[in-house]
Amino acid sequence: MIGAVIHGQGDVRAETRPDPTIAKPTDAIVRTVAACVCGSDLWRYRSLAPVPEPKPIGHEYIGIVAEVGDAVTRVEPGQFVIGGFLHSDNTCALCRKGAQANCLHGGGYDGCQAEAIRVPNADGTLVATPGVPDDALIPSLLTLSDVMATGWHAAISAGVGPGQSVAVVGDGAVGLCATLAAAQLGADQVIAMSRHETRQQVASEFGATAIVPERGEEGAKRVRALTDGVGADAVLECVGTDGARQQAVACVRAGGMIGVVGLPHGELPSHDLFWRNVGVRGGPAPVRAYLEDLLNRVWTSRIEPGKVFDLALPLSEVAEAYRAMDERRAIKALLRA
Amino acid sequence: MIGAVIHGQGDVRAETRPDPTIAKPTDAIVRTVAACVCGSDLWRYRSLAPVPEPKPIGHEYIGIVAEVGDAVTRVEPGQFVIGGFLHSDNTCALCRKGAQANCLHGGGYDGCQAEAIRVPNADGTLVATPGVPDDALIPSLLTLSDVMATGWHAAISAGVGPGQSVAVVGDGAVGLCATLAAAQLGADQVIAMSRHETRQQVASEFGATAIVPERGEEGAKRVRALTDGVGADAVLECVGTDGARQQAVACVRAGGMIGVVGLPHGELPSHDLFWRNVGVRGGPAPVRAYLEDLLNRVWTSRIEPGKVFDLALPLSEVAEAYRAMDERRAIKALLRA
Repeated sequence: MIGAVIHGQGDVRAETRPDPTIAKPTDAIVRTVAACVCGSDLWRYRSLAPVPEPKPIGHEYIGIVAEVGDAVTRVEPGQFVIGGFLHSDNTCALCRKGAQANCLHGGGYDGCQAEAIRVPNADGTLVATPGVPDDALIPSLLTLSDVMATGWHAAISAGVGPGQSVAVVGDGAVGLCATLAAAQLGADQVIAMSRHETRQQVASEFGATAIVPERGEEGAKRVRALTDGVGADAVLECVGTDGARQQAVACVRAGGMIGVVGLPHGELPSHDLFWRNVGVRGGPAPVRAYLEDLLNRVWTSRIEPGKVFDLALPLSEVAEAYRAMDERRAIKALLRA
Repeated sequence: MIGAVIHGQGDVRAETRPDPTIAKPTDAIVRTVAACVCGSDLWRYRSLAPVPEPKPIGHEYIGIVAEVGDAVTRVEPGQFVIGGFLHSDNTCALCRKGAQANCLHGGGYDGCQAEAIRVPNADGTLVATPGVPDDALIPSLLTLSDVMATGWHAAISAGVGPGQSVAVVGDGAVGLCATLAAAQLGADQVIAMSRHETRQQVASEFGATAIVPERGEEGAKRVRALTDGVGADAVLECVGTDGARQQAVACVRAGGMIGVVGLPHGELPSHDLFWRNVGVRGGPAPVRAYLEDLLNRVWTSRIEPGKVFDLALPLSEVAEAYRAMDERRAIKALLRA
């Protein structure tokens, strides 16, 4: 089969890889319908995270079950399925608490930007759609594997609810999905911090009530001006860089919450947060905890998170997909398998 | 009047100080009925926080209104009142959100271990009891000024609710009150980490379902053994030292919450918390937000947080009160004014 392999900085290649096979009775093999490139894949592409040796890459997918192991009972060949970016058994003591990203028996995949994927813990990981989806639904369904669920997790972690003011730091696919999540969860004000016109446009379609293009103290000042002078009840930090984390701290009100989902590349001023009574919560999204709810919202056309994809390429052109995202020519690139 | 003044390490004296007077029309003067020594006062007593010059000390009080400024309308002379350890106007944009500890116009007092206190923002700060309390209620009412409200804040910040497992780090007055708060808020399991028999006894009376005397990794192992092997849903960190903060991190499950109310004297491993999806929230308690609810619980004998006082002395013996707490001969010392 064809699958993407990262070799080092700026070097992702579509290569021939061995077809995956059932290794454990709880595995399934999924023939990929679509995969995509994640902002977090770019950390390695940009050498901000190490690549000690060539490695299959990608962790987002939707597809059709091709084969299941003997112990799999909840999905069967032919079903259209979505799986989160981490697999989980959905039965351990942590999964039962809704912490599936930290499943005691979970983990990652061997590269999902590929024509086929071995999915461990298939019963606990995969959720089948009610039927074969229309092509138009493919992008939105694909976002549930990571970015939409991650944006949702930012909002849930920050306790977003009706009546609140919410500021979103980051206008990548996750930030845009967090904007959508905040609006869906009933926030009164959703302030998208973005200086790119095409992303501002998507943010508005997703329910942003205000756009703040400024950054740093100027940006924080604008957010405070929109929130009774005190800052937002909740800030959703969807980047992870030091600058983004500081931006979140500057925009949140005393007593508020920061939901964090960007891979952390900077510290938080924990003493300052204490004195201001600001909470911080988040991490890798427990996709499985949100998947049925989000699938229902997509299936009934209440949300269309697939709008974050502004580039679609065949899997064989994965190198161009990375380049386009790296150069910010694309918000997010879909790969057809 | 007589009031306590800290001069430096191990040196608190009962001295003659000028009687407080109304300085602003929103002030009240309260004749103190009881005050007390706080664990946080010990930071300066132990020279862990600087004492650049002699300074009146103390921030917890209950008493009777002696005089009010012209703009005060909600309390009047003769009423028995409780005020939090910080004053707040209870009307600003942050107070309206329940963040009274961060009131835009709030602040501290000029030493509450004294026979009389000037209370700024009297209308927003003071809550009158339904009548003159029995002597037996005095200790419990006094805890509402800080330690009970602070323990409550730890539990609220950590989102404690029915069905949860909660571990409490710290068996000082705040830790014991946090234990009581977790039980009141419906936690299934309340694990008090304490190795002092008298404090274990109070913790049990306050609703602890298990006592863990071990500390460090041994203590964390015991907590995990009580919680399906994964750690507590919520940990209430009521000390603030580096050791206590690390203990909290070691005892919480992935996806759980740490409520922090101990004055922070150590960092938290923010990247580790991110990957484990552990949230942290807390700070100085917004006493005013909880005061009516807690007063009602005390007044109707549903809680008796006053049990944390195991020493009562006249204000003139304040030096001995500090010594007893410093040497851990007393959990908490009440001062009769």
